[in-house]
Amino acid sequence: MNNNLVLQTDFGLSDGAVSAMYGVAIAVQPDIRIFNLTHDIPKFNIWEGSYRLYQTVPYWPEGTVFVSVVDPGVGSERRSIVAKTAQNQYIVTPDNGTLTHIHDSIGITEVRIIDENVNRLPRSGESYTFHGRDVYAYTGARLASNIITFEEAGPEVPVDSIVQLPKPEPIMNNGVLHGNIDILDIRFGNLWTNIDRSLFKDLSAEYGDSFEVTIEHETRHVYKNIMTFCRTFADIQLGEPLLYVNSLNKIGAAINQGSFAEDYHVKAGASWKVSIRKMLKTQGS
Amino acid sequence: MNNNLVLQTDFGLSDGAVSAMYGVAIAVQPDIRIFNLTHDIPKFNIWEGSYRLYQTVPYWPEGTVFVSVVDPGVGSERRSIVAKTAQNQYIVTPDNGTLTHIHDSIGITEVRIIDENVNRLPRSGESYTFHGRDVYAYTGARLASNIITFEEAGPEVPVDSIVQLPKPEPIMNNGVLHGNIDILDIRFGNLWTNIDRSLFKDLSAEYGDSFEVTIEHETRHVYKNIMTFCRTFADIQLGEPLLYVNSLNKIGAAINQGSFAEDYHVKAGASWKVSIRKMLKTQGS
Amino acid sequence: MNNNLVLQTDFGLSDGAVSAMYGVAIAVQPDIRIFNLTHDIPKFNIWEGSYRLYQTVPYWPEGTVFVSVVDPGVGSERRSIVAKTAQNQYIVTPDNGTLTHIHDSIGITEVRIIDENVNRLPRSGESYTFHGRDVYAYTGARLASNIITFEEAGPEVPVDSIVQLPKPEPIMNNGVLHGNIDILDIRFGNLWTNIDRSLFKDLSAEYGDSFEVTIEHETRHVYKNIMTFCRTFADIQLGEPLLYVNSLNKIGAAINQGSFAEDYHVKAGASWKVSIRKMLKTQGS
Repeated sequence: MNNNLVLQTDFGLSDGAVSAMYGVAIAVQPDIRIFNLTHDIPKFNIWEGSYRLYQTVPYWPEGTVFVSVVDPGVGSERRSIVAKTAQNQYIVTPDNGTLTHIHDSIGITEVRIIDENVNRLPRSGESYTFHGRDVYAYTGARLASNIITFEEAGPEVPVDSIVQLPKPEPIMNNGVLHGNIDILDIRFGNLWTNIDRSLFKDLSAEYGDSFEVTIEHETRHVYKNIMTFCRTFADIQLGEPLLYVNSLNKIGAAINQGSFAEDYHVKAGASWKVSIRKMLKTQGS
Repeated sequence: MNNNLVLQTDFGLSDGAVSAMYGVAIAVQPDIRIFNLTHDIPKFNIWEGSYRLYQTVPYWPEGTVFVSVVDPGVGSERRSIVAKTAQNQYIVTPDNGTLTHIHDSIGITEVRIIDENVNRLPRSGESYTFHGRDVYAYTGARLASNIITFEEAGPEVPVDSIVQLPKPEPIMNNGVLHGNIDILDIRFGNLWTNIDRSLFKDLSAEYGDSFEVTIEHETRHVYKNIMTFCRTFADIQLGEPLLYVNSLNKIGAAINQGSFAEDYHVKAGASWKVSIRKMLKTQGS
Repeated sequence: MNNNLVLQTDFGLSDGAVSAMYGVAIAVQPDIRIFNLTHDIPKFNIWEGSYRLYQTVPYWPEGTVFVSVVDPGVGSERRSIVAKTAQNQYIVTPDNGTLTHIHDSIGITEVRIIDENVNRLPRSGESYTFHGRDVYAYTGARLASNIITFEEAGPEVPVDSIVQLPKPEPIMNNGVLHGNIDILDIRFGNLWTNIDRSLFKDLSAEYGDSFEVTIEHETRHVYKNIMTFCRTFADIQLGEPLLYVNSLNKIGAAINQGSFAEDYHVKAGASWKVSIRKMLKTQGS
């Protein structure tokens, strides 16, 4: 491992919980390097935790160890695992679906169950409520700093045994692309769909083309309008809607310097459906 | 010292104040390692600053230097001090009560007043408003990186001379435990009482037992209900209230995947009283 | 360079964007040291990004590399540049006004345009929307860790060619100081004016003196009251207004342990005007 430990939780940074995790890791290995992915995952939102790993892990070098603790089932029989990605990063996490996107995109090659008899902060006592600090940060730090090997985390289990969240796939049907809003680009209010650039290109999409975009939530029409496919936000007027390729090579929908999510009260998830149809060009135009 | 500097303030992270503290520390010693406890202490809330140190300091190794700046009396005659804990961590702070919990739990063995004639950023000029950067970060960094010794911080004063906030102790009275809500587990809305696990066990508490829990604020009844003592949140239905042992070995009160604090408008402090009484088991049940 | 990279953005920390920047930088150079200035610049607010650099950069040592990405014109023809300050710090940023305050205070001695043909994350593909990660973090990391020299960033351009925001200067007129509210001390609600301590002293200001302070926004009178010039907040009663010298040696206006900005709905910018006039002392008092 490369001595880098990257932490993600839904704990927030307003109390001492994350700092206690840092302290535990540094007590394990004084020279360890610790970084934050984010600690602002909405509480108990495993899907978003999974997505943020997908958004981030590929940019970190081989041998980086991630700890992700979004854990509504803490204390239940859910397993604690360490997964190895196809790019040789490692993720320490409760086995509750956090690896859904990574498994599907980068790939997971090996999974081990954490043996908490040995991989647990000594004298951490009877508190069963703070696995983030006493098991995950402690084990992640020992793994990142090569105090234990991946094998010493615990016994191997089949990759296919890990919990996976339902993850709808986009489809093309009669020239209409059907997908869903996977997640929000929170700060800017942009919508990130699950539609890959390459699938979108099957619509013969070129920059400057117009598309009819429909957003539905359950039985409700939320949005229907014509949007331009732009290379960059600067290609369109302030306040105008656009389709674009986001930093993950998916199709995003935005309002230039506005907030699509706020203006139209759009949220993200499998129940937020998006359809995209290319507008025919008027002859001679 | 171990070259680790951990910062806590009520400055927030939205402006440049904390980054200026980092810059000052790195200018002192390029290799220093700097970490955040939190910078989200509610402004001027010394009690919460004191509690977050208590929650965190014990997890950091010996020789770690903490800087805590929650300082409503900046510029007044309040002293600037460095305290040494019984576990050989050091805390640089205004002497205004920030050490209340650490003094009472880990223990403080020695206190020195910062001599600002020597321990102050050179050329920091006439600004008397930014001690956090010019005195505390600067002195903390010099101490953490062994540029000055603890003794060189300034003259020793009696440990008992430091300011302490009133800190009520829980008591058992006729089989009823009386304590208070010390602090909130902010993100999750759980209540953390000042009642130790060991005192609670004097109620002959076993997992699965039921307790009548009453919360009062000044003359007002805020909450009265039966709660189950659970080993983990997963032992109870979603939305149900429970008592549990928190990560500090205190009794916490929570709603499984809900927010107790929000649902019942509970805050924390000496004026938020909690009483716990064990329910008798029905014969033969 | 000194291997320190300091990041500022308007991305927030709630998703994976900043962590991806960290990952890119660490993949460039495993030993690089990365710090945050802030990621909470209000979205697209170049002025505030410029101000936070001014507030922070001078406290960091020579050879520090800053990356500042507040970029409403991403993808437009705006240039990507690296600027060298008169104190030998470096700032990697879109050329959109972010350097206004630094240019005016510390000074900028040399500017180079980033040659994105060589200074861009390999395989970063067709996404034109995430320059922060693929160009700025990547180039900043390579510069900070001496993989490229400043000269290798790209061709030099005249310092005077960079974009500058309008920046009103305070003036003294008939014994009245006219300035504006440059920015808010967000967390505490204090107002930071653009009036230097030295200019203020031209009013023969002494601690304890009284001043009539008027705040106007466009055609509206927002505030008019007598305020005391205090050495520190502790010199005045709780809830009372005061003038003071802030951590940047500018005149600030505050309410002791209150929030001036919230109480009087004051915001910051060139359109928020402040006037200060010294009250005459009553004879014999």
